[in-house]
Amino acid sequence: MLITLKKESRSLEKALAGRFRKVPHGERIVYIVDGKIPEDLLAELDIESSKETSRSFKLASREYSEEATRVRVGEAEFGGPKIVICAGPCAVEGHQLLLDAARAVKDAGASVLRGGAFKPRTSPYSFQGLGEEGLRMLRGVSEEVGIPVLTEVTAPEQVSLASRYADALQIGARNMQNFELLKAVGRAGRPAVLKRGSSATIEEWLLAAEYLLLEGNWEVILCERGIRTFETATRNVLDVAGIALTKTMTHLPVIADPSHATGRRELIAAASRAAVAAGADGLLIEVHPKPEIAMSDGPQSLTIREFELLMKEVKEIARAVGRCV
Amino acid sequence: MLITLKKESRSLEKALAGRFRKVPHGERIVYIVDGKIPEDLLAELDIESSKETSRSFKLASREYSEEATRVRVGEAEFGGPKIVICAGPCAVEGHQLLLDAARAVKDAGASVLRGGAFKPRTSPYSFQGLGEEGLRMLRGVSEEVGIPVLTEVTAPEQVSLASRYADALQIGARNMQNFELLKAVGRAGRPAVLKRGSSATIEEWLLAAEYLLLEGNWEVILCERGIRTFETATRNVLDVAGIALTKTMTHLPVIADPSHATGRRELIAAASRAAVAAGADGLLIEVHPKPEIAMSDGPQSLTIREFELLMKEVKEIARAVGRCV
Amino acid sequence: MLITLKKESRSLEKALAGRFRKVPHGERIVYIVDGKIPEDLLAELDIESSKETSRSFKLASREYSEEATRVRVGEAEFGGPKIVICAGPCAVEGHQLLLDAARAVKDAGASVLRGGAFKPRTSPYSFQGLGEEGLRMLRGVSEEVGIPVLTEVTAPEQVSLASRYADALQIGARNMQNFELLKAVGRAGRPAVLKRGSSATIEEWLLAAEYLLLEGNWEVILCERGIRTFETATRNVLDVAGIALTKTMTHLPVIADPSHATGRRELIAAASRAAVAAGADGLLIEVHPKPEIAMSDGPQSLTIREFELLMKEVKEIARAVGRCV
Amino acid sequence: MLITLKKESRSLEKALAGRFRKVPHGERIVYIVDGKIPEDLLAELDIESSKETSRSFKLASREYSEEATRVRVGEAEFGGPKIVICAGPCAVEGHQLLLDAARAVKDAGASVLRGGAFKPRTSPYSFQGLGEEGLRMLRGVSEEVGIPVLTEVTAPEQVSLASRYADALQIGARNMQNFELLKAVGRAGRPAVLKRGSSATIEEWLLAAEYLLLEGNWEVILCERGIRTFETATRNVLDVAGIALTKTMTHLPVIADPSHATGRRELIAAASRAAVAAGADGLLIEVHPKPEIAMSDGPQSLTIREFELLMKEVKEIARAVGRCV
Repeated sequence: MLITLKKESRSLEKALAGRFRKVPHGERIVYIVDGKIPEDLLAELDIESSKETSRSFKLASREYSEEATRVRVGEAEFGGPKIVICAGPCAVEGHQLLLDAARAVKDAGASVLRGGAFKPRTSPYSFQGLGEEGLRMLRGVSEEVGIPVLTEVTAPEQVSLASRYADALQIGARNMQNFELLKAVGRAGRPAVLKRGSSATIEEWLLAAEYLLLEGNWEVILCERGIRTFETATRNVLDVAGIALTKTMTHLPVIADPSHATGRRELIAAASRAAVAAGADGLLIEVHPKPEIAMSDGPQSLTIREFELLMKEVKEIARAVGRCV
Repeated sequence: MLITLKKESRSLEKALAGRFRKVPHGERIVYIVDGKIPEDLLAELDIESSKETSRSFKLASREYSEEATRVRVGEAEFGGPKIVICAGPCAVEGHQLLLDAARAVKDAGASVLRGGAFKPRTSPYSFQGLGEEGLRMLRGVSEEVGIPVLTEVTAPEQVSLASRYADALQIGARNMQNFELLKAVGRAGRPAVLKRGSSATIEEWLLAAEYLLLEGNWEVILCERGIRTFETATRNVLDVAGIALTKTMTHLPVIADPSHATGRRELIAAASRAAVAAGADGLLIEVHPKPEIAMSDGPQSLTIREFELLMKEVKEIARAVGRCV
Repeated sequence: MLITLKKESRSLEKALAGRFRKVPHGERIVYIVDGKIPEDLLAELDIESSKETSRSFKLASREYSEEATRVRVGEAEFGGPKIVICAGPCAVEGHQLLLDAARAVKDAGASVLRGGAFKPRTSPYSFQGLGEEGLRMLRGVSEEVGIPVLTEVTAPEQVSLASRYADALQIGARNMQNFELLKAVGRAGRPAVLKRGSSATIEEWLLAAEYLLLEGNWEVILCERGIRTFETATRNVLDVAGIALTKTMTHLPVIADPSHATGRRELIAAASRAAVAAGADGLLIEVHPKPEIAMSDGPQSLTIREFELLMKEVKEIARAVGRCV
Repeated sequence: MLITLKKESRSLEKALAGRFRKVPHGERIVYIVDGKIPEDLLAELDIESSKETSRSFKLASREYSEEATRVRVGEAEFGGPKIVICAGPCAVEGHQLLLDAARAVKDAGASVLRGGAFKPRTSPYSFQGLGEEGLRMLRGVSEEVGIPVLTEVTAPEQVSLASRYADALQIGARNMQNFELLKAVGRAGRPAVLKRGSSATIEEWLLAAEYLLLEGNWEVILCERGIRTFETATRNVLDVAGIALTKTMTHLPVIADPSHATGRRELIAAASRAAVAAGADGLLIEVHPKPEIAMSDGPQSLTIREFELLMKEVKEIARAVGRCV
């Protein structure tokens, strides 16, 4: 049972003797109670709301909040009527490239700049990112162009550092069940984009989000980025019905990453249209001024021109589902 | 190498000594040649066109025909600008129900009626279909309502029977690699809808189509119906990027079956919108006047009312991608 | 409920009014009853045994028969203490090769010769088998060498033909849910090897077996041949715990096909040892006198020498689990 | 190219200008060189060995070392003729339970005690482990019983703490691509057990091992613990052929975790026998004195009695493959 109070209640906590977790939500306190609350005590409490859910993820569930949660990153608002586009290079590689990308994606209609300074790479011999130097470039370009930035963190000790430079933090698919990282980001005071693990069920994904919420971070954006299947013609398989289903299960916004989902430049537009048509609240797209020299994920990065065309198509689809970009 | 001639060439066949397959295509003859053709012979032949493809599926490949193939079923045309909607009950259960369904889906904009008389069921204890009686009902309702019908065949010996009653034949996901069935349908003289197997790669699917084409049946419509993955929240996962990719690999039309892909009524609209947004040429949707009493697939069947709403949404998406319904 | 009677009971059938299926089992008749049987009627019947099962597959369930079913093919007995080895080329290619293979595998300890005359091939351009000519070769070699033969059928119309030549019939992975084929083999009067579909759950596999049993064919041998997963380093993944689990769910014998499971010659010995260690009742192994010229599955065929070595290893494992080869 | 020298070479490093990584291996230095080394320089160097590999994982490859690497944890040696058994409760829950478990598994033949103090749990509401208190218990019981202990770490900051108490560190399946954790364990000076991610390919797994080796930790034991597939009857599917294949690709020892692979107590013995038959160098098994009260993974924990029986079976299989327990 979920009970929301205006302030903490010592008498409730005493009566429950450890059978609860509590989480601040704005100016309220949510108690997640395991088992029953004595009737007389219930009568005494100044309860704002009281909810039941049979879901394993409590705070993330639609039962907790029928209203969709909106998450702001700079001027962008995820979960509202607008489809939010996050775009930029896979990795931060240098100031000029990043600046070019930032200007171009903003001009084309993106509201958030993406770029990785800490790159989780399958091979230790691949480019691992510029680290703090990359974060500094992100911040600089963000100020110069006037666009908020989203960047990935891969270990708890990077969280406070990245929070100083970035407007929002990303937890990658490989780290969806890196629980210490989830807890650290839950305490970071920054909106978080939580990617679905490549073989995670939707329930596991929402339980990972629950780790963030339980630490008091309610600004969580879920990101479907394709799941791993037997099919090798595409890097992953974008689960569009999964996006629609997730939105019925949780109040959190859900976006899609067509770049990682397909791994192939020529399919990104189709996957983007499909995701928005299915109800995605936003897109996360890899764009690189010169994909052929990208240090990471070149084959799945759009050129500026391709991104501009994509934006036009996405706008049409957004309108068809009663939204805008 | 694929060589198209106006008529059969005995001298070519003799020179190739078995290193070829030949297939009629309209009034032309296509020779699929393994290896080289002697230069002097090439000069002699009255060649309409000559194509190379590195694909394992030759006739089905885009290299064979850059132009999209259009397949007619009654008045409906798959592969053209119009999104073709096929709808109806999973199984033919009785005349009145079928008639109600047919009228309703036609009124709402469907161009083809679907309904199964031979039902491939996981359990031998499940309803197996009405057989020829079901086919007769389909034909009757088709005439009464004025809508062509599509029905599934599950064994070679059903093909000629079903061809007498139905306008188009369906090969189900479980039979995608039932090669004797493919050959029989390849010789049936009816357009065929070939579903992707639930764990078939796109290449395997196109090779299954090749079996049909090689028998001379060029009227093949591919149907993506979701693939089997680790995720159990939905029956299958609709591979929308796979639809887009398939269309780059083949000239055949590709439609989607959101009903089997999701297995959940509440997700069918989202999956339908996504499929059309990704480039699907049509949809195959289970609609039942009373899903709660359906003898098969009730939980994934739309009511008439839900189907009407879906059609409105699909029309908007079709317009957004420059097509119509 | 499953009721076994010494002979058919008209009064029972009348009382049940269609709520039953009946199947001969040896000299007995099994009634599979849906719902209750009137108490007074129960008292009247000469019931041999009466069983309940909550399984979807009734006749195949362990609840129906706690005792393991033993299936004889020639002198070989599947499901008893002996591990039965079936070996031979993927496809029948010619008399001499088959004869060489048959003699060699028999000498090394195999009890059944395998060989395909009807080959289900992903590509229509691959070798499709010799058909009846291949069956004739199989029969000839069988007589000459004194070893029973197992061969695959891929369509209902092949069943009676193949039954004339072969001692046992195989239903391949791609046809596990080819229900018309299952029914035909269920009526063939020949033991059947039923392979697990490459993405079939164990329950679906046992329901496919149920199709055979319901037609009166109790001589069913299940064969695990690897399932399709995301891993591409091997052709499939052999589900050894699945073998152990299946044996707790059904009374039918379960064998393994390490050749298709791995697709790589160098892994077949390890997979064979693992399967027997996990409880498999037999092995189905591709052996070819000259794998480098095999018309099908060469890379996963063992040479005679490799097969002899494998047999020694399997014998050791069989002994370790209290069985023999 | 991999070049092993007796000591560092400044002239080599200078000539390569950054095109290398170097790693100490015992008293030698391995240079992993990208591209060519000037011929004249090669002649000058005092080269112990020089290897080529086309593998993406260099140090972990069989090409680097044809000889199997042996890793010692206390008295136990992984990768030698003996099958090493690691057993114990999933989580450390209390001193007495752990002590009982340790004594029992040691008596039955286990050489390493397993037990988790930091538990990565899908749900934040599940028991998360005792942390340092649990580590202290592990150390105490280890001393008391005389058995080395293996425990899991889930974040870089736990590594030095856990290294003080444990003889070996485990990286769980969910953290296989937690690269910061891999680097920390690579520097920890403790043998490491690296589990395969539930949807990781073998190549990705070996690249994760490469992260450890590159930091100078050569004492890496790989652990196959089942992969995620469409089948839900078991928790995962144990990839036995994958174990055999991995051993051909790397010189590192490979063990199996039948508890997580199956998730079902009744299948653990079969999976253990299969793993050892396929060539596994050891087993990691969950044993709990009272599984019915276990705070984690009760359904897949063996009782002491079941573990004793299992050990007898495993001994027989080990003997059959020419090894011992």
